[in-house]
Amino acid sequence: MNASKHTSVTIDDIREAQKRIAPYLFKTPLSYSHSLSRKLDRDIFIKWDNKLRTGSFKERGALNFLLQLSPEEKNRGVIAASAGNHALAVAWHAKQLGIPCSIVMPTTAPLVKMKTSSSFGAEVSLVGSALHESYAHALELADQSGQVFVPGYDHPHIIAGAGVSGLEILEDWDDFDAVVVPLGGGGLLAGISRAIRGSGKDTYLLGVRSQWTKEMGKPKAQFSPAPIADGIAVKDVGALPKEIIDSDVNKVVHVEEKTIATAITSYLHEERTVVEGAGAAALAALLEDALPKQYQRLVLLACGSNIDLNILARLIQRSQFKNGQLLRVRVSVPDRPGSLARLTQTISEQAANVLETYHERSFSAEPGNVEITFLLETRDEEHKGDLMRSLASSGLHPHEL
Amino acid sequence: MNASKHTSVTIDDIREAQKRIAPYLFKTPLSYSHSLSRKLDRDIFIKWDNKLRTGSFKERGALNFLLQLSPEEKNRGVIAASAGNHALAVAWHAKQLGIPCSIVMPTTAPLVKMKTSSSFGAEVSLVGSALHESYAHALELADQSGQVFVPGYDHPHIIAGAGVSGLEILEDWDDFDAVVVPLGGGGLLAGISRAIRGSGKDTYLLGVRSQWTKEMGKPKAQFSPAPIADGIAVKDVGALPKEIIDSDVNKVVHVEEKTIATAITSYLHEERTVVEGAGAAALAALLEDALPKQYQRLVLLACGSNIDLNILARLIQRSQFKNGQLLRVRVSVPDRPGSLARLTQTISEQAANVLETYHERSFSAEPGNVEITFLLETRDEEHKGDLMRSLASSGLHPHEL
Repeated sequence: MNASKHTSVTIDDIREAQKRIAPYLFKTPLSYSHSLSRKLDRDIFIKWDNKLRTGSFKERGALNFLLQLSPEEKNRGVIAASAGNHALAVAWHAKQLGIPCSIVMPTTAPLVKMKTSSSFGAEVSLVGSALHESYAHALELADQSGQVFVPGYDHPHIIAGAGVSGLEILEDWDDFDAVVVPLGGGGLLAGISRAIRGSGKDTYLLGVRSQWTKEMGKPKAQFSPAPIADGIAVKDVGALPKEIIDSDVNKVVHVEEKTIATAITSYLHEERTVVEGAGAAALAALLEDALPKQYQRLVLLACGSNIDLNILARLIQRSQFKNGQLLRVRVSVPDRPGSLARLTQTISEQAANVLETYHERSFSAEPGNVEITFLLETRDEEHKGDLMRSLASSGLHPHEL
Repeated sequence: MNASKHTSVTIDDIREAQKRIAPYLFKTPLSYSHSLSRKLDRDIFIKWDNKLRTGSFKERGALNFLLQLSPEEKNRGVIAASAGNHALAVAWHAKQLGIPCSIVMPTTAPLVKMKTSSSFGAEVSLVGSALHESYAHALELADQSGQVFVPGYDHPHIIAGAGVSGLEILEDWDDFDAVVVPLGGGGLLAGISRAIRGSGKDTYLLGVRSQWTKEMGKPKAQFSPAPIADGIAVKDVGALPKEIIDSDVNKVVHVEEKTIATAITSYLHEERTVVEGAGAAALAALLEDALPKQYQRLVLLACGSNIDLNILARLIQRSQFKNGQLLRVRVSVPDRPGSLARLTQTISEQAANVLETYHERSFSAEPGNVEITFLLETRDEEHKGDLMRSLASSGLHPHEL
């Protein structure tokens, strides 16, 4: 599509979208987070757009688009390219509306997103190692087959649908002074900005991208890390969203992937809710202190929850290392019966749980000794310190790895 | 307290409790679970009592109790014994009401529960290796200090408070034919039963205990497993709850701890929400087919979310093994440069992710070979099968461990 003036998405468009999609979707909750508010010394409300049926905000835009197709277009069916959440949203609502649906995903798409799209009855093909390759392939297929291509963000209907989230927030609470929104292709931020500006509010609007998107312009390294925030690992913001964002949004910041990882485990710990990387980016921006201090009453968008559980398990372990709740320590003991029993007794007196042990004979510095590496679970930094001191006072020369 | 006739908790007591606690607590959501309904071929609503501030249903009972103390009793302060959720509930609401609070926990209480109770300003002491020891100690302290002992479940005020959950369910939806409730000390099940029976409904009421509670009568084995469902690892149902349950509840079943573990990961996977073992017991009963088939429109209580994240990470890995998404396989390759590269190439062609490797030289069956054990991540059983066949056809004699 051609880039159009941002007036092509007005608050009236968003209000119409809200009426159009209302029979099919429920309003997502906005809730005050006691624990995040206390930890970050601000009043923080979370908009739980991850609670929609397919786990992300993408449904409102996709549904608003599908409902405006002509009967003839619906017959031809739809096709979408997406690394995940857009695919799920299109597949689910196409199924509900009886529209045939094809999805093209990159081979690197998260497992949970691939499997669920197929389970919704969409024809899923894996093409390309990055989204732009899947995208090109889907456009080609649409050209051949006559299926209608459903854009992920760069379309007024998608933006108007996404903007309904902004209207919902305003219905529940309008005394906020800042809204923080993750930014990938830009549909959500553009939609929410139009809803809020269209309501006459001069709220501070902060968009949050992942630092990972800055690396994407560089020549591809063989071992470049996979993005944790795959949902916003989009090289370029869409043309129409960009126009709106440039006009309405106060600032766009980039956050580190490791902060996003911390934000995911914070949501799990403080809110007991699974939020994916892209969905946790708004919280990551607060953790990096990217929002000026004068803004105290905030809404954070938690806009997606589709993360593979194996990755979640790894992030939990990573956060345990960070918080002093996992300790990798090497000690050296005489290589004879009873050594391990005495050693584990010392560890157990400190109430630390042994997760793994690894014995090294050949490389031990003391020839009669064996070096044993333990992976231990401890309560916190203080407990870890107690344990290290106790091992040292038993003459074990503990060495943290 | 003395066991009293169950008419000592009536629906009017529960209605009064609802009014009493309303200024301090919000109503928890009841939501339809699309994915669990589809998977289990029933209409399933979840009552999210884990969404209360301290992560469990215990708040309503504790608050209803605290609000009925005299000014003089409030001055003396309160004391409670609990392995977790009751402690958190009492500590939080005592703090809100300005009542001094002491908590006695067993040394085995989950870390998250210990830490959070202290963070609410309660004086926490760790006494006893099981709840009944902490309980005895707390009663003794109450005797000495004059603090008011706040019972965990065996008291009409606690049961009436817990029953408010039943009234909330009835306000949101009353066309259910069964309600499934986890059962530890019995406060929640007794309260909900009184609310539902008091409303004149003959709904099927199912209580769910953990199999673990059956083992507790046996002489303590040195390596007996810790309960996953620690919140309902209560040896005996309270006297007053038992009276009510015997009269109102259709059936009480025991579920396996391993099914509870599966229920926890199901909640995480399908509902993207952290539910602790005790809170997941109702879902576990469905997974074990413990509810007669004729009951199709259900409410499951998800009544707590306080599980240590390290345990959650382990349960995720366990479920991955179960679903064929983790594979431990041993292969034998010649002990010379290039072997590992060729081997990992074979694995990577099948798009399996290598998590760990372990090399064994000394114990290899073939003297010139090294045995390498891999921990691999695969998509599902089918993908795992493809990988095993591919390793076999390369002459690697893969052996799944």
